[in-house]
Amino acid sequence: MISAEQNEYLSRTGPGTPVGQLFRRYWLPALLVSELPEPDCPPVRVSLLSERLIAFRDTSGKIGFMDEFCAHRGVSLWFGRNEEGGLRCPYHGWKYDVAGQCVEVPSEPVSSGFCQKIKLKSYPCVELGGIIWVYMGPEAEKPALPAFEWTQVAANQRYLSKRWQQSNYLQAMEGGIDSSHVSFLHSGDLNRDPLHRGTEGAKYARSTNTTFDIHETAVGLLIGARRNAEPGFHYWRVTQWMMPFYTLIPPYKGNALNGHAWVPMDDENCMAWTMTFHPTRPLSPQELEAMENGHGVHCELIPGTFRPVANMDNDYLMDRAAQKSKIYYSGIKGIAIQDASLQESMGAIADRTKENLVSTDNAIIMARMLLRKNARALEAGISPPGLDPQSQQVRSASFILPQDGPFKETALEASKVRLGEPFVAV
Amino acid sequence: MISAEQNEYLSRTGPGTPVGQLFRRYWLPALLVSELPEPDCPPVRVSLLSERLIAFRDTSGKIGFMDEFCAHRGVSLWFGRNEEGGLRCPYHGWKYDVAGQCVEVPSEPVSSGFCQKIKLKSYPCVELGGIIWVYMGPEAEKPALPAFEWTQVAANQRYLSKRWQQSNYLQAMEGGIDSSHVSFLHSGDLNRDPLHRGTEGAKYARSTNTTFDIHETAVGLLIGARRNAEPGFHYWRVTQWMMPFYTLIPPYKGNALNGHAWVPMDDENCMAWTMTFHPTRPLSPQELEAMENGHGVHCELIPGTFRPVANMDNDYLMDRAAQKSKIYYSGIKGIAIQDASLQESMGAIADRTKENLVSTDNAIIMARMLLRKNARALEAGISPPGLDPQSQQVRSASFILPQDGPFKETALEASKVRLGEPFVAV
Amino acid sequence: MISAEQNEYLSRTGPGTPVGQLFRRYWLPALLVSELPEPDCPPVRVSLLSERLIAFRDTSGKIGFMDEFCAHRGVSLWFGRNEEGGLRCPYHGWKYDVAGQCVEVPSEPVSSGFCQKIKLKSYPCVELGGIIWVYMGPEAEKPALPAFEWTQVAANQRYLSKRWQQSNYLQAMEGGIDSSHVSFLHSGDLNRDPLHRGTEGAKYARSTNTTFDIHETAVGLLIGARRNAEPGFHYWRVTQWMMPFYTLIPPYKGNALNGHAWVPMDDENCMAWTMTFHPTRPLSPQELEAMENGHGVHCELIPGTFRPVANMDNDYLMDRAAQKSKIYYSGIKGIAIQDASLQESMGAIADRTKENLVSTDNAIIMARMLLRKNARALEAGISPPGLDPQSQQVRSASFILPQDGPFKETALEASKVRLGEPFVAV
Repeated sequence: MISAEQNEYLSRTGPGTPVGQLFRRYWLPALLVSELPEPDCPPVRVSLLSERLIAFRDTSGKIGFMDEFCAHRGVSLWFGRNEEGGLRCPYHGWKYDVAGQCVEVPSEPVSSGFCQKIKLKSYPCVELGGIIWVYMGPEAEKPALPAFEWTQVAANQRYLSKRWQQSNYLQAMEGGIDSSHVSFLHSGDLNRDPLHRGTEGAKYARSTNTTFDIHETAVGLLIGARRNAEPGFHYWRVTQWMMPFYTLIPPYKGNALNGHAWVPMDDENCMAWTMTFHPTRPLSPQELEAMENGHGVHCELIPGTFRPVANMDNDYLMDRAAQKSKIYYSGIKGIAIQDASLQESMGAIADRTKENLVSTDNAIIMARMLLRKNARALEAGISPPGLDPQSQQVRSASFILPQDGPFKETALEASKVRLGEPFVAV
Repeated sequence: MISAEQNEYLSRTGPGTPVGQLFRRYWLPALLVSELPEPDCPPVRVSLLSERLIAFRDTSGKIGFMDEFCAHRGVSLWFGRNEEGGLRCPYHGWKYDVAGQCVEVPSEPVSSGFCQKIKLKSYPCVELGGIIWVYMGPEAEKPALPAFEWTQVAANQRYLSKRWQQSNYLQAMEGGIDSSHVSFLHSGDLNRDPLHRGTEGAKYARSTNTTFDIHETAVGLLIGARRNAEPGFHYWRVTQWMMPFYTLIPPYKGNALNGHAWVPMDDENCMAWTMTFHPTRPLSPQELEAMENGHGVHCELIPGTFRPVANMDNDYLMDRAAQKSKIYYSGIKGIAIQDASLQESMGAIADRTKENLVSTDNAIIMARMLLRKNARALEAGISPPGLDPQSQQVRSASFILPQDGPFKETALEASKVRLGEPFVAV
Repeated sequence: MISAEQNEYLSRTGPGTPVGQLFRRYWLPALLVSELPEPDCPPVRVSLLSERLIAFRDTSGKIGFMDEFCAHRGVSLWFGRNEEGGLRCPYHGWKYDVAGQCVEVPSEPVSSGFCQKIKLKSYPCVELGGIIWVYMGPEAEKPALPAFEWTQVAANQRYLSKRWQQSNYLQAMEGGIDSSHVSFLHSGDLNRDPLHRGTEGAKYARSTNTTFDIHETAVGLLIGARRNAEPGFHYWRVTQWMMPFYTLIPPYKGNALNGHAWVPMDDENCMAWTMTFHPTRPLSPQELEAMENGHGVHCELIPGTFRPVANMDNDYLMDRAAQKSKIYYSGIKGIAIQDASLQESMGAIADRTKENLVSTDNAIIMARMLLRKNARALEAGISPPGLDPQSQQVRSASFILPQDGPFKETALEASKVRLGEPFVAV
C-alpha cells in the first residue's frame, strides 16, 4: 500500500512530472522499424509520455520525431506529404525537415528568413535492433545508445511486437516484475503454448510455493524466485527489472529469451512491447509463425492497429468453459491478454491505497522504491542509473541449485550477457 | 419544481448520501436467480447504489455479494475462478468465501494467519421469489425478509425481467407512480398488447380526464386515479408506491398483476425490474411467450445483456408512420420502451428546477416528500417505514364505484393482500 | 497568435457569451426547408449556439422553433406528436403551438387558464431561399430578413447542403476566409472536380505565390488574393467575409457561385452550410448530379444524417497512394473533407496561443479583430454591422488586371450584387 500522493508521483509521466523527467533521460522504444519501412513513407502518430508526436522517414531515409502539429495553424502533420526531404503540411505547404526545422514557407519570400525562425519541438532518434528509439530529454544529457542484448543480435535472431494496453504503464510493468503470478494466471499455458512447451523447468514453475531473493543491480533489480525441484534442490527463476521500464522473463531451456518494455503513451495508456530473441541461433520458422499467430507472450492484433483482438470492449473473449476446465486458468486465451485483462480491470490508474501486498510482492515494492528514489535524486540533480551500456548487459536465467547452493553468486554470473553465447536455463 | 439542492438530495444514492443511506436499510433486488443458476457458475458484476460488487454462487450453492476487486492488487474478481467453496482471483490465487473472507493466500504460510486478516466488504443476501436480494446497510439494522406478494406466490405464477435504463432511478420511478400518462403514452397499447387486451377497464382507462385521490400508507402511498365510467359511476385505478422504490400497476380483470422496482445502479443508471404475477393461477403459456417476446410491460433485450434492443443509440427505433397512425402514440413500440425513451430524454439526472407540475403530479410530489422526510428522519436516527413485512402486504386494484361511493375504504380493502385469493379488478 | 482569453472570447457562443450575444442579433440558417417538408411532418432537433431546440411545421404549414424539452416534466419533444395545429408531448399530452405557447394541458380544466401561463422559450423563424432561418435575439432588435444573393434567386438556380463538422465554428470559418490554402490543399481538385474544371482562372489559381489586399466593407471584409497571370497582368480572386459567419468563394468563369455559412451548434461542433447558386441560369442536371454525389464543395453524407461518410472515426478514408500521386494533395478526397479533416485535427477548439501567423493570414487576423470589435461594441450597446439588407448585397469575383490596375475600385464594383445579371469571373 502506498499513499495517494505516492501513487500519483509514480504514475504520472507527462512533461514536468518527476517520473516523466526521469524517463526522459533514457532512449525510449517508440516505433517498430517496420512502421516507417522506407523513404517518404506515410508519417506515423506517436503518443509518448503524454506528448503527441509525428514520426516520419524522409527521402534520404533519415527519421524525424517532432510535435504532431504544424507551427502555423496547428493542424496535424499526420495529413502531411512526405516528399523531397521533408514533411509538408498540406494546408499551406509549410515544410519541415527531420529536425523539426521549417525549411519552406511558400507564402513568405525566402529572403525574409522567416522559415528559419520556425522550428517544431523535435527529438533525436535512432534505429537500433529493429526499433526506432527516441530521446526526449535535455540534449546535453543524451546517453549512449541502448545496448540491451536484443538490440545486439542479428535480425533473424529477434522478433518484436507491441500491443496497446488501456492502463497506466506502472500496473503493466508490475505484472512483468511479478514472477509469482505465472503459477496461477498462466499455469494453463506452461504446457500448451507452442513456445513454452516441454521443458524441465516448466514442470517446477507450476508450483505455487515461491520464495524470493532480490538484489539491486547497477540497472535495476535481479529478482530470484525459488521453487522446489527434486528433493534437496531448488529451481530458481531470475527476472530482471531494468530502468526505466524493462523486464526480462526467466527462460526455459531450448526456448528463446523474452523481455518486455512498458512504455507510457499517456497516463492512462501504455505500449507493451515484447522482444523475443535468441543469442546463438536464428528463430525457427515454427517459432516465427507461432509468434505471428499471437502465441508466446505476443498476441493477436486487430489488423492495421496495435489493439488486441481480445480487449475490454469484448470482455477479452472470456471463455467460461475453458476457465472451468483450466484450459485457460482465467478463461482468457493467451499469456499477454491474460495479463492485460487483469491489469486493465484495475482501472486506468490502479488505486494502490487499497492494496494488501505480501512477501511475493517484494520485487514490486522495491522497484517502486527505486523508481521514486531515482526520480527524487534527479530532482536533486543526480543522474539516474542504467544509462551506461555496460549496466544494460544483463540476462534473465533459470537454474537448479542444491538447497544450500549460492544463489546470488550463481545468479549474477548467469545474468551476464555474453554476446553470441548460450544463456543459462533449465 | 424543486430546488437544485433538493434534486441532488433525492437523486444521489451512493455511499454516505442521505437517500443512499435510506435505501441501504432495505433488502434490494440485485439479480434474477437465473443469473446465478448453479453452484460454481460464473460470477456476475453488479452495480448497486454506486458500488461495484461481484456476486457468485459457491460449490454448496450459497451466494456471496462482495467488493468486485481483489484485496491484494485490485483486479476484478469477475475474472475469478469459482471453485471448491470460494471465488479465486486468477492473478495470484487468493480465494474468498461467500462472506468475502479470504480463505487462501497461496504464497503465505497457513500458519501466518495472514489470510484471516483479509476480508472484502461483503453484504448478506437471500434468494426469495426468483430474486437474489442483498442488504447493504448496518448489520444490526437488517430487516425481516421481503414479503411482497410476488415473492410469496409459486414460481409458475410469476415472471420476472429486468432492463437497464440509462437514467437516474428517480425519473424512472416517477413514471411508475404517475398513472395519468397511461391514457396518452400507452394509449395505443391498451387494446393491442396481448397482455392488456379486451377488458372493460381498458375502455375507461383511455379517458384522459383523470382526478387523483392519494393516501399515505404504512409502506408508502395509495394512489387512486378516477375516470368516468357509465353515467353515475367512476372507474378507479389504484397504484401503490412502496418504499423505497416499488410501484404496482393497477390491474385489468383477467390479466396478471404487474409491479416494478426502480433500483439505482449508480446516479446515472438504474435497473428497471418488472414483476408479473397472478395470485390464484399459473401464468399461461401464451402469457409467458408474450412476455418473453417483450410484450406487456417487459421488453426485448439484446441477447446476453439487459440492454433493450430499442435504446438511445438507435433513437428507440422510432417509427414515425406508426406514430402518425397512432399504432404507437409516440412512435415507439412497447410500453417499457415508451417509458424509457421519454425518461432517458430528460437527461441522465432530470433537472427538476425547470418543471411545471400540475394536480395529476400530486402523487409524484408526495412520493418525493416522503422520500425526503424518511431520509431526513434517518439522518436523525429514526428508522424508515416499510421494513415490517406486514406493511408490504398491499396490492394494486381497479374497480367501479358509484359517484358518491366510498373510495378510500374500498381502496384500502381492495389493497389488502390475501395470499392465494383473487385481486380486485375490472 | 492570440491570448487564451481572446481565444475563449471568440470561440464561445452559448447564451450570455459576448460573441453568442453578437450572433443572436442575426438571422441564423437553422434547417434546410427539406428537413420540414410538409405540414405535420416529424419534428427535428436543432443545436444552435449551445441551445437545444425543437423545430416543427404545424398543420397549417407554419414553423415553430422552441426549447426541445416539455415545460411539464422535461422530456424531449422530439418524441412529440405533430398534429392539429401543434406539437403534443406524448407523455401527458401537453400541446404547444409554433410560438411555444402551451395550448392544451388535458389534465387541467380549460377554465383554469393554466395552459396560457405555460410558454416554452421560442424563436421567430422564416423560410427564405430554401433555408429556415431563426432569430434568437431580443425581439425589439429583430433585423430585416436576410437578403444575400442566394436567398433571392429562383429555386432552380440554387443548391444547398450542410454537413456536421466536429470542431468549433471559428477554425472552420477561418478556412473559408483563407484563400491561400487552395493552391495547396485543394490543388489536385482544381482540374479534376467536375464543378471546377477547365477555366482560365484555375490555371493561375494553382500558383502558390499569393499577395493579399484586404478592405473592410459594410458587412465584413473584401479579401483580394493576387497571383501572377500573363506577364504584366495579375489574376485577382475576391473572397467575401460577411458578418457574422459567411464566406463567399471566388468564382471560376462558367461555374456557379459558392458560399458557406459556418454556424455554431455548440462550442465543439458547427454546421458547415454550402450554398451553390447562379444569378442568371438554372443549375444544370450535370451540376446537380455532381453536387448530390458530393462533388464541388459539397460532400457525401451518411444517409439520414449530416455526418460525412469520411470522418474522424475512419481517418477521413485517407488514401496514401492518392496522396503520393497528388491525385488528392493530402490524400483525402473532396474539397469539403479536405478542409474538415485538417480543421478537426486542430482539436475541438483550436489553441491559437501556439500559432505562427504570416502575411497570408491577414484576412483571418482582420476577421477576428472585427468579430471582437463588434462583440465589444455590442456589450457597450452599439448595434452590429451587416444587419442592413443592402450591406449584404455583395458577391465574390475573380478578374485579371494590368499590374498597375486599380484593384480596390474594380473589386468593389465587381462585388455588387446585380440580381439576375452575370457575375465577374475569369
